[in-house]
Amino acid sequence: MEKQVSLYRPRMTAAGVRPTHAISVKDEKGEVKEVEIAGELPLTILVDGHEIVTLMTLGTYPELLALGYLRNQRLLSEIEAIESVRVDWQTESVRIRTRDGKGGQLREKLTGRTITTGCGQGTIFSCTIDGLYAAEALRPITVRQSQLSRLMKSLATYNEIYKSAGAVHGCALCSTEKVEIFVEDVGRHNAADTIAGKMWLDRISGLNRVFYSTGRLTSEIVMKAALMAIPVIISRSGITYMGLTLAQDLGMIMIARIKGDKFHIYNGQEHFIHDLIPINGNNP
Amino acid sequence: MEKQVSLYRPRMTAAGVRPTHAISVKDEKGEVKEVEIAGELPLTILVDGHEIVTLMTLGTYPELLALGYLRNQRLLSEIEAIESVRVDWQTESVRIRTRDGKGGQLREKLTGRTITTGCGQGTIFSCTIDGLYAAEALRPITVRQSQLSRLMKSLATYNEIYKSAGAVHGCALCSTEKVEIFVEDVGRHNAADTIAGKMWLDRISGLNRVFYSTGRLTSEIVMKAALMAIPVIISRSGITYMGLTLAQDLGMIMIARIKGDKFHIYNGQEHFIHDLIPINGNNP
Repeated sequence: MEKQVSLYRPRMTAAGVRPTHAISVKDEKGEVKEVEIAGELPLTILVDGHEIVTLMTLGTYPELLALGYLRNQRLLSEIEAIESVRVDWQTESVRIRTRDGKGGQLREKLTGRTITTGCGQGTIFSCTIDGLYAAEALRPITVRQSQLSRLMKSLATYNEIYKSAGAVHGCALCSTEKVEIFVEDVGRHNAADTIAGKMWLDRISGLNRVFYSTGRLTSEIVMKAALMAIPVIISRSGITYMGLTLAQDLGMIMIARIKGDKFHIYNGQEHFIHDLIPINGNNP
Repeated sequence: MEKQVSLYRPRMTAAGVRPTHAISVKDEKGEVKEVEIAGELPLTILVDGHEIVTLMTLGTYPELLALGYLRNQRLLSEIEAIESVRVDWQTESVRIRTRDGKGGQLREKLTGRTITTGCGQGTIFSCTIDGLYAAEALRPITVRQSQLSRLMKSLATYNEIYKSAGAVHGCALCSTEKVEIFVEDVGRHNAADTIAGKMWLDRISGLNRVFYSTGRLTSEIVMKAALMAIPVIISRSGITYMGLTLAQDLGMIMIARIKGDKFHIYNGQEHFIHDLIPINGNNP
C-alpha cells in the first residue's frame, strides 16, 4: 500500500445507481404521501468466472465495493493483479478478471466462515482472520480533542442518503483534520469495503488516518479498520466487548458514544490530548 | 407448526451468559468512569459434528439462537428430529445431535450464499430463498392504530441491554395487543433467529402476530418474519426497496418510521384501521 509503485488501474465500469426510490405511503392521518426509501440490490462477485459471494448493496459504488471486499478479505493482495472490473446489473454481478486468470484458486480460501455482528456483509472468511495479526503494524497517532470536535461537526454535514431515506449506514476515512471519503450503504460493512476499494485503487494509506462509522464498533468493523491499517476508530454508537479486545490487541485508539461534546475513550487514552474544556453546547 | 403434535423437547443446556461487561473509560473531561458494554462471542453451530456456521452473539440464549438459525435457514424442519442441543463456551460451540445422525447432509444445502444487509448474521443460504415462496401463505390480519400505539408504548419499556450498554438490536414477537417475546442481541438477525427458536420449541404460530425490530426492515429481516409466518412487520427505523418488494410479494403489512404518533404504512394499507386521531404528544 505504501509503495506508490505505479498508478496502474484496472479497466472499470462506472455502474453506480441512484441510491433512493420515491414511493407512496399512507401516514398516521390516513393521508398518502411521497417518501424516499433506500435501494437494496444483490451483487454477486465473480473472479475469473468463479462465484465468491453475493452482497446486498445500495449500488452506488459497485466496482469499489467489489475491489474493497476482495482486499479486506485478503483474497487478492495487489491491485496490479486485476485486469478489469465489470458490473452488469442485468445479471446482478460484478465480474473481475485477474491477469493470471487464477481466480479459481480463491475458492480454496473460502472455506471457514464466520458470520459476524455487523450490519452489512457480515461474513469474514478465515484467511482474513489469519491475516489480521500479520497485517501492517498499527502505529498509534496523537488525537486532540479539538480535532475530534471539528471532525464530528464536519461529519454531521454528510449522511445525505440517511437524511432523505434512512436505512443506511455511513463510514468515513478522515485525516485528523478533515473528512476525506464518506460512503453510505445499506450495509455499513459495504461502506467500509467501498472505502477500502477506493484506498486500494488510489494507493491511499491508512496510516495517520481516522475511521468513522455511524454504527456500532463490533469486532468486524474494528477488524476492517485494522486491515486498512487505520490506527484510530470513532463512532457515535457503542462498542462490543470483542471490538474492544481487538482494539486493545492491535493498539488502536477507540473513541465511541460521541454525542455533542461528550464521548468515551475506550482504548488508547495515552494518545489522546484533552485540549478543550467541554462547553454545554450540543453539536448536532 | 400448527400441528401441536406433541410437547417433545430436545435435551438442552441453559448456557446463557451475562450480556454486559463493566469496563473503565476516560470521558471528555479526562475523568475515568465505569460503563457497561455489550458482550460479543463467537458461537459455532455443529450438527452431528459437521460445522454449519459461526455466529457472533451476545450469548444470552445460545440454544434458542442455534435452533432458530437452523429453522429459519430451513436446514431442519421438525423439532422432533433434534435429540440434543449442547452449548460449550470453552470451545465456543453449540453441538446439535439429530435423531437420524444425518447432519452431514445439511452441508450440501450450504452452497450458494447471499450476504445480506442486515445487522447480525447476514448470510442466507440458497435453500432458504428457494423455500420462501413455498412457505406458509401469509394470511393478512387487521391492525388498528390504537393497537399499534399501545404496542409501541409497551415496546418502549423493553430494550434493557440497549439502555445500559448500547450496541445491540432488539426484536419482538407480539400479538396485536401485547409483547410476547423480546430478545436483544449484537446482531438483530440473531435476535430474530432466537425468537424463531423459541417459537419452534414452544410450537408458537406466527399467524395473527406482529414482528417488531428496532432496526431497519431490509430484505433479510422481512424474509425472516415471513419464514416465521408472521403477517405484520413494524419498526421505528426505515425500510429498503427490496424489503418493500418482498413485503408486497408476500402480502405482509409493513409499518415503519414509527416515531411517537407518526408512522408510515408501506404495504397493506387496506388492512389498517385509522381509529385514532393523532394527538400532539410524543411517546418515548
